[in-house]
Amino acid sequence: MSKQLPIVATDECCSSLARDPLSEDQAVELAKLFKAMADPVRLRLLSLIASHSGGEACVCDLTGPFELTGPTISHHLKVLREAGLITGERRGTWVYYRVHSEVLARLSAVLVPGGETVPA
Amino acid sequence: MSKQLPIVATDECCSSLARDPLSEDQAVELAKLFKAMADPVRLRLLSLIASHSGGEACVCDLTGPFELTGPTISHHLKVLREAGLITGERRGTWVYYRVHSEVLARLSAVLVPGGETVPA
Repeated sequence: MSKQLPIVATDECCSSLARDPLSEDQAVELAKLFKAMADPVRLRLLSLIASHSGGEACVCDLTGPFELTGPTISHHLKVLREAGLITGERRGTWVYYRVHSEVLARLSAVLVPGGETVPA
Repeated sequence: MSKQLPIVATDECCSSLARDPLSEDQAVELAKLFKAMADPVRLRLLSLIASHSGGEACVCDLTGPFELTGPTISHHLKVLREAGLITGERRGTWVYYRVHSEVLARLSAVLVPGGETVPA
């Protein structure tokens, strides 16, 4: 599965879907990101990582809030990683996760209603 | 299926997921919206409606850009409507669709990275 960051570094990166109709390619890329976010556990993981002190969370911080097994959490983290929403880096015993802020920023900009444009 | 507008009119409506961890309930509501948007055709429909002159599009404007049958387009519009992302109003022969701008605005605010908060 592709690990590329979608909708990054295109001229239309920060235009709202309310400004101009999305192209077919843009819609396909965006749909992949929204699909990765279309799950409550993955949204909570994304939020736990993004809101964690320093913008980074150890996988050991991410299992406590859920009544789920480690492998299930790992599966959801993998989906977020493969969609390009987070990165994971192993340091010693643990993997540390960060959110790709620029991808979140672009998604946020795409959803601005009324045709406004959010600066990059 | 519920036709309620999710994440609207709550105290936490405009806080970013990077500011505080999402609650379980917030994550469930948001996941429903992202699921409705996790399809390229639905994203393009949403964008066609939102970017249409006057913020309103006749269903007759929405079939041309797709190589899909009317019933398939209708199905996707129904999913968007049931998720609370658009409204449809019949006037004469046609149904006219509008985007719920406040729902888009809230989704946009939820995705602002770095813990910023977007004013309502």
